[in-house]
Amino acid sequence: MSQLHSYLQDQWVTGTGAGRALVDATTGDTVATASTEGLDLKMAMEHGRNVGGPVLRAMTFAERGAVLKRMSEVIHENREALIVASRQGGTTRGDAKFDIDGASATLSYYAYLSRSLGDRTFLLDGKAENVLRSARFVAQHIFVPRHGVAVHINAFNFPAWGMAEKAAVSLLAGVPVVTKPGTATCLLTVKVVECWVNAVILPEGALQLVTGSIGDLLDHVGPQDCVAFTGGSKTAKVVRGHHAVVANNCRVNIEADSLNASILGPDVEVGSDTWWMFINQLSTDLTQKCGQKCTAVRRIFVPESLADAVVEALIEKLNDVVIGNPGDKGTNIGPVSSPSQQRSVVAGIASLSAAADLVWQAENVPEGGCFVRPSLFRSDKGAHTEYVHEHEVFGPVATILTWAGNASEVVSMVAQGGGGLVCSVYSDKRKWSSEVILGLAPWHGRIHWGSKKVHDQSPGPGTVLPNLVHGGPGKAGGGEELGGVRGLQFYWQRTAIQGDCGLLDKILD
Amino acid sequence: MSQLHSYLQDQWVTGTGAGRALVDATTGDTVATASTEGLDLKMAMEHGRNVGGPVLRAMTFAERGAVLKRMSEVIHENREALIVASRQGGTTRGDAKFDIDGASATLSYYAYLSRSLGDRTFLLDGKAENVLRSARFVAQHIFVPRHGVAVHINAFNFPAWGMAEKAAVSLLAGVPVVTKPGTATCLLTVKVVECWVNAVILPEGALQLVTGSIGDLLDHVGPQDCVAFTGGSKTAKVVRGHHAVVANNCRVNIEADSLNASILGPDVEVGSDTWWMFINQLSTDLTQKCGQKCTAVRRIFVPESLADAVVEALIEKLNDVVIGNPGDKGTNIGPVSSPSQQRSVVAGIASLSAAADLVWQAENVPEGGCFVRPSLFRSDKGAHTEYVHEHEVFGPVATILTWAGNASEVVSMVAQGGGGLVCSVYSDKRKWSSEVILGLAPWHGRIHWGSKKVHDQSPGPGTVLPNLVHGGPGKAGGGEELGGVRGLQFYWQRTAIQGDCGLLDKILD
Repeated sequence: MSQLHSYLQDQWVTGTGAGRALVDATTGDTVATASTEGLDLKMAMEHGRNVGGPVLRAMTFAERGAVLKRMSEVIHENREALIVASRQGGTTRGDAKFDIDGASATLSYYAYLSRSLGDRTFLLDGKAENVLRSARFVAQHIFVPRHGVAVHINAFNFPAWGMAEKAAVSLLAGVPVVTKPGTATCLLTVKVVECWVNAVILPEGALQLVTGSIGDLLDHVGPQDCVAFTGGSKTAKVVRGHHAVVANNCRVNIEADSLNASILGPDVEVGSDTWWMFINQLSTDLTQKCGQKCTAVRRIFVPESLADAVVEALIEKLNDVVIGNPGDKGTNIGPVSSPSQQRSVVAGIASLSAAADLVWQAENVPEGGCFVRPSLFRSDKGAHTEYVHEHEVFGPVATILTWAGNASEVVSMVAQGGGGLVCSVYSDKRKWSSEVILGLAPWHGRIHWGSKKVHDQSPGPGTVLPNLVHGGPGKAGGGEELGGVRGLQFYWQRTAIQGDCGLLDKILD
Repeated sequence: MSQLHSYLQDQWVTGTGAGRALVDATTGDTVATASTEGLDLKMAMEHGRNVGGPVLRAMTFAERGAVLKRMSEVIHENREALIVASRQGGTTRGDAKFDIDGASATLSYYAYLSRSLGDRTFLLDGKAENVLRSARFVAQHIFVPRHGVAVHINAFNFPAWGMAEKAAVSLLAGVPVVTKPGTATCLLTVKVVECWVNAVILPEGALQLVTGSIGDLLDHVGPQDCVAFTGGSKTAKVVRGHHAVVANNCRVNIEADSLNASILGPDVEVGSDTWWMFINQLSTDLTQKCGQKCTAVRRIFVPESLADAVVEALIEKLNDVVIGNPGDKGTNIGPVSSPSQQRSVVAGIASLSAAADLVWQAENVPEGGCFVRPSLFRSDKGAHTEYVHEHEVFGPVATILTWAGNASEVVSMVAQGGGGLVCSVYSDKRKWSSEVILGLAPWHGRIHWGSKKVHDQSPGPGTVLPNLVHGGPGKAGGGEELGGVRGLQFYWQRTAIQGDCGLLDKILD
């Protein structure tokens, strides 16, 4: 059994002890272990602060962008090997590409963005403005990289993309990274970092990788560090309430649970372009990554008059899905990523069965491994189906909720979810859509509006795009990532510099 | 003894029980009490959400700005009565004006800003941008008011300004306020709100006032609410770690302790314009509000060669200061605001005496009341004077720290403070200043650069300006307020809306 290594202080090191098991999700066999026991995570944090930080801050945005570009290219050059490594977590070839190409595309996007930030090491925020009535005494806001480390704690579902997305933003901002992937699938994350290290493209101290449990890592955060977390709300609470995080007012960004909703407008005719956009994008969200996307639809709001047709159309699509070994050609859905996820999804399906009606469940699901049965539920009790509005079942599972079709009621039912990452609305009626979209905007980080003129031009609600913000209020964590240059601000301190306009011009330009 | 009332659900209500005492800081006599016992704070939160929120969100920025303008005018119209009310907290006439005029000026500034935000109810963030390569499918980020309540918890030192500053930003953003002033001095806050209520200018449910202890207010925060806190770091931890805040990922902004530094450049000649700018602004910070400003200088970094001259010049200024009854004409320094502050400052002076050398202390300080002895300390042990770098004594007290005069060393010593609200640097040497200012920017929300050409044109480092951000990383709380439109973002949700460009144009413009 091989113990996966961590990459700390620009060296590969291996933890001691039994570690945590990584299971091949298809077979259930343990294929590796990961441990942080005996690793000096305090020294890693100091290495980031004392070596990585100064190196990155001395680089211009363009120079940092050039590193991201190479990181993106190296992923692409090693794409086939990474797809193979991804198999451990149960991903099909298509899902592996989604994760791996997402990683390289996000790095590439931020490399591209770096060119617009110019040949400088920090940014101006707005223009110099007068202070009081003096013409000479002015103030200029600037954004400077914080002098700390960015601790990235990622979820198991996107071992490549999740890590690369956070790293791209942080490194471009000028802040070194200590990244901790979800242990269950971190084999792929290790492979990606190995590719980067072998290609000798990472600035010294810029990126460190911790495999295994988080150990005492958070004990060592200080006032200039920040923590970006993606994962379940229970762990999020632990991060947010951690004594060192609270004591140092350490900056924290959380992306947690999200009961993403998809809403079909009452104006949409069965069989129309907008209809098929809705059905196809739902079907993608139910099957892609075996439903293990933070942005996947969990609640499907359908006007009563259209509900039977939606159920029928969805079942027809779902019946075509092949569930099986993700290594086999033609497989659409593999297992979920780990035994604990399997237990959680099975329990969630059982709870949903008590709250709503099961209208479809996959047959012919392989025995063994971490397979679950993709399931579709329906409830006609709307707001009163509490479990559906409160609990996210993180797998190929969703519930159709019928309602009368009016805008105000669906806004209030969606809001019962307590805040989400993304919501999708399908309608060609402007007034109705406007009421739903503007009513739901405070509850979401992103809203996807499907309509006939764009029915074939969209990546769907489930795809996170680097130029748009990703995050959501309340239950979804209250955080915000990506969004182009917006995402960089998390890693910066904004400072107002006030003084003589002539002197400020010279030191800030 | 009168129990102060609270303004909840658009009505004046009074708590039961003994309540907390408000003491006349000059005499030590209890003049009023305040209690939240028996008040329904849950209903207050719901009133804000269900009544105030919809009312404010339906108003355009210009309409919200018009309310702020009237709030500002009403304060100005009642200025004399408010100055009298302010006396309870021990403030001199000059200090009362600083607080009250600060309140009306900030409201007036945000009223002015509202005109630039146009005749609309929410804002666009940037321009529509392409998603993938489609020309029709685009995304537009928007800022919408959150559908919750802004809970404002303020410090005792600025009963008018502190409340008005937070309220101005929140109301312009479209979010109703429940404001809780520091109990010790909330007499003035109550008077201000009384003026507004009597002038019938507040939209229904837009502003509620809680006097007395915070009670169970925070138990009722939800996913769309936010909490802005100004005060000590101990209470800040309680707010940040509060179960309902954590469980709902409630947005939190903290402004806490700050060991603000002032740095004299080694190039500054004794008696020069820059020199006197430094000495005069230090003297203001030591005496204004009896040193009870979150932005007041606590650590004065002086090159060894200039230290004796600085001590001499400061003592000469301080010896002119009259300490006494704040109601007497000619008094420069009154008491601190409460018996508990008095105990805290006296204890802080005792601790500083053990860590550094007392070089000056005021004589002729009145007996009784909450008077303390303004004190100036000096240490030549720089980085090793730990107490000075770690503990804020919130009164008319500061410590001179000598050092060799090099930029890198002073940057590292100032950073020992763990993050501050504001730092001031006085020098006419561009290179040296640049190294200090850019080195310290990550550790501060604002940096004030004094130099000869602006020696007579600046409000000094201690004055918070509404167009500049106010806040600081680490020990200072990690938050950010004001800064013009920047401060509004705390009260908004940023949402990316993706869809057909033609449809988006129509619903968002």
